[in-house]
Amino acid sequence: MSQILDGKALRDEILDDLKNQISKLDQKPELVIIQVGDLAESNTYIEQKIKFGEKIGAIVTHKKLPLDIAESELIREIQLANDDENVNGIIIQLPIPQSLNKEKIIDSISPQKDVDGQTAISIKSLVVGSPTFIPATTKGVITLLDANKIDPSGKHVVVVGRSTLVGKPTALALLNRDATVTIAHKKTQNLQAITKSADIIVVATGKPKLITKDYVSENQIIIDIGITVVDGKLVGDVDFENVKDLVAAISPVPGGAGPMTVASLFQNLLEAYQKQS
Amino acid sequence: MSQILDGKALRDEILDDLKNQISKLDQKPELVIIQVGDLAESNTYIEQKIKFGEKIGAIVTHKKLPLDIAESELIREIQLANDDENVNGIIIQLPIPQSLNKEKIIDSISPQKDVDGQTAISIKSLVVGSPTFIPATTKGVITLLDANKIDPSGKHVVVVGRSTLVGKPTALALLNRDATVTIAHKKTQNLQAITKSADIIVVATGKPKLITKDYVSENQIIIDIGITVVDGKLVGDVDFENVKDLVAAISPVPGGAGPMTVASLFQNLLEAYQKQS
Repeated sequence: MSQILDGKALRDEILDDLKNQISKLDQKPELVIIQVGDLAESNTYIEQKIKFGEKIGAIVTHKKLPLDIAESELIREIQLANDDENVNGIIIQLPIPQSLNKEKIIDSISPQKDVDGQTAISIKSLVVGSPTFIPATTKGVITLLDANKIDPSGKHVVVVGRSTLVGKPTALALLNRDATVTIAHKKTQNLQAITKSADIIVVATGKPKLITKDYVSENQIIIDIGITVVDGKLVGDVDFENVKDLVAAISPVPGGAGPMTVASLFQNLLEAYQKQS
Repeated sequence: MSQILDGKALRDEILDDLKNQISKLDQKPELVIIQVGDLAESNTYIEQKIKFGEKIGAIVTHKKLPLDIAESELIREIQLANDDENVNGIIIQLPIPQSLNKEKIIDSISPQKDVDGQTAISIKSLVVGSPTFIPATTKGVITLLDANKIDPSGKHVVVVGRSTLVGKPTALALLNRDATVTIAHKKTQNLQAITKSADIIVVATGKPKLITKDYVSENQIIIDIGITVVDGKLVGDVDFENVKDLVAAISPVPGGAGPMTVASLFQNLLEAYQKQS
């Protein structure tokens, strides 16, 4: 039997810890979530954040802005939150319409309130190796490894997927933890040989069941960040049923990396609160 | 016989091209180099840049500041150059004293004049995949590959060394060019097996002759960015004499990646000039 890396149980531990810490504060930490439009998927993610925030005693303010908002107006909304002393963290729920300059908008978040680590200052700090706020999904992966006493130092980690939101920051964070990191993607030739050679595989492609039993080998640790809805069910990037007994440890979908993302975001929020106090 | 990737010849081609383009401009592009202290190695690098600038008809202004300069004063110098319409590019010659906040200082360079791609905005643009200015050494590597019709797309590139100035940006730039990229470093276990599995090896560790014949295999392409002075001679990170006949192509030291760095910096300067006009 391989070890199941249980993100739900760990999320619940973090929840209790955050709730306990926040209960002792004079003021509640506040997260502002800015959404442009009304995408169903975004609504679901935001709902999860609001629920988690309620449970730990944080304030989550959801600003839902019209799909046709002008860039300048959106930036003004961000600046209002930057200037608001009661606000400790700000995230822009992605995606936003393509007509808006995504990088410019994200970079108008104050680096001190950038709890999802998406501004230029945060990304540079990750590249340089002394991160301020690590992007929530990446932080969740690191925390899941740490909690299960899996030390990536010196190990060969293959990250499959090179998104700016997940793949690249996760690769950089694992590099900072002294892993030897390979970034593979859809143009990679001979992906199978590369994933088989890894000590740890992190998959974030959004391609359901891409990693079958032919892509893994014994003693590996697999973190599955992919979440896709297939026939009304959440499916990961790993063919979990056929892989799980072949490897040393694996995170399931749902219940693995997913729950860790929200918990990590609120850990960053509390950290921001403490730094700002 | 393996192919020698000749950075000197290519540098001379770029020099002629830049000289020709600049001769047609109304005003000469200007680079400001800010140095803190008087490190011999820095002096040599700056001298190379001044010479190259003279040859192509660019203005290179060297501001040598005292070792004990206050951070605020150094930042004021940078802002003067930011505000000077005649200045098109600014670089801080590294290293600077540890007492100064390096990231804060670099980030005070206007992103429009950041011709060595070291500010947060430039680094984020490289991570996101739509770079503004690619760091000069990295740009030199890419140009050397391109000029020799070596397409990294889909290839497995192993970058040995993870410095912020060279290793990491080179890995990111090659990832943007669709390579499968592995970043190895001093904590990497089994480096030999990893470099042997590569299609392209890029070495930037500053460890003379780290890569011996036991680290390479046939058909590989090797780019050596290492430069160390050993017994008065420039030595690369690759044991060139014993490796060169085993692989498909290799860049020598000196005369490989080194000359490309200065040429690339001035390509970025001309690009900055054109964007600013």
